[in-house]
Amino acid sequence: MSSLTSFIFRQGKQIVAIGRNYAEHAKELNNKVPKEPFFFLKPTSSYVFNGGNVEIPDGIVAHHEVELGVVIGRTGRDVSQADAESLIAGYALAVDMTARNLQDQVKKRGLPWSAAKGFDTFTPIGEFIAKSAIQDPHNLNLALKVCSQAGLWCAHVNATATLKINGVVKQDGSTSDMIFQIPQLIEHITSIMTLAPGDLILTGTPSGVGPVAAGDQIECTMSDPASGKILSTLNLL
Amino acid sequence: MSSLTSFIFRQGKQIVAIGRNYAEHAKELNNKVPKEPFFFLKPTSSYVFNGGNVEIPDGIVAHHEVELGVVIGRTGRDVSQADAESLIAGYALAVDMTARNLQDQVKKRGLPWSAAKGFDTFTPIGEFIAKSAIQDPHNLNLALKVCSQAGLWCAHVNATATLKINGVVKQDGSTSDMIFQIPQLIEHITSIMTLAPGDLILTGTPSGVGPVAAGDQIECTMSDPASGKILSTLNLL
Ligand SMILES: [Mg+2]
Ligand SMILES: [Mg+2]
Ligand SMILES: [Mg+2]
Repeated sequence: MSSLTSFIFRQGKQIVAIGRNYAEHAKELNNKVPKEPFFFLKPTSSYVFNGGNVEIPDGIVAHHEVELGVVIGRTGRDVSQADAESLIAGYALAVDMTARNLQDQVKKRGLPWSAAKGFDTFTPIGEFIAKSAIQDPHNLNLALKVCSQAGLWCAHVNATATLKINGVVKQDGSTSDMIFQIPQLIEHITSIMTLAPGDLILTGTPSGVGPVAAGDQIECTMSDPASGKILSTLNLL
Repeated sequence: MSSLTSFIFRQGKQIVAIGRNYAEHAKELNNKVPKEPFFFLKPTSSYVFNGGNVEIPDGIVAHHEVELGVVIGRTGRDVSQADAESLIAGYALAVDMTARNLQDQVKKRGLPWSAAKGFDTFTPIGEFIAKSAIQDPHNLNLALKVCSQAGLWCAHVNATATLKINGVVKQDGSTSDMIFQIPQLIEHITSIMTLAPGDLILTGTPSGVGPVAAGDQIECTMSDPASGKILSTLNLL
């Protein structure tokens, strides 16, 4: 992890995560596609950096949700869609880990999502990517692979072609499928609360979410389909 | 506001707020008394200090909830009830402002509470009180008075006996009525997430919550029933 990445996310105070921002994902969990954006907060204590370990507490069914993170660079409140871009410092590849069994329970009872989303290590985050390095944030591929076979390692750990096949691609989506695009998300969030430098917006996950077991490895990539270039990787044990 | 108070809350990253921790309050909103503690997160961007202005957005029914705040002084995870006291730096008188109409809607739909709890200025907070200054955090009186009469000011603003009667006491409770005491709350929260210096736990509100209108003034006091001493006041416009 670079010093800049560490600096930004250790200073940041808010993680504002958007729910159901991809129609296919809303459907796979039997949720309606929302008519307006909604968010929940994750604590910054849940960050874990590239190469780190996602801890799965006893009794928790932990789902992976790969997401594009938007890193805020300027303080703003009541920011219009037209001005939203000026709030953005850059991006990061992230995973919104979710205690799905706990979330299902609290949803039924009308209770907050905070615990289900807030466990330590439930927000893996990749390197900070400056805004200038991303051509179009609404045309990025987000992929997540889970490597479950006990005793074997993902390709990124032992770089052999043989082991590569142990990883199964679980999520492979495009940020072009967001229901609400980033300027709309910024307008919505800042109509309620001030965003400040180091804050992170998680923009929702494409379909394919599913459980991660203790010992699984997770490998995420963000790439530009136009150039084929990999912009970020995020590997978790 | 003292420099120490400002320093602590401007550095703090998490506000962890407990729901339904007083039986009478749970009942007044037709909620069940919980069998175990639960929490939601408020953004630190929602702080407003003594003398500040609580902004009530258009269309929002904003309820006051006066609460004892516990200020964390040490980093901790998986802290047992027995060790919980060592995590506490001090206390503060606080209000957990709540967009009740929005919260009612999202509760019905199983959605997060974050927006309903997270508007800017929705967490008024008083002076930091060092732990040593509080004899027993489970024997404090928490009172909240709303002064609604247009054009008149609460006693704390214009200190005349005549105007004092314009304020109506809405909440007057004792922290002795908490369902889950502070050590249990710390054990529960840190079983999920790390707490760190400057973080705030809001411990729930006694009964008597109700709406605040634009232009209302709010006057809160925390006092020690043993000595009769007022430990903190928090005044909001
Ligand atoms: Mg998500
Ligand atoms: Mg925070
Ligand atoms: Mg409350």
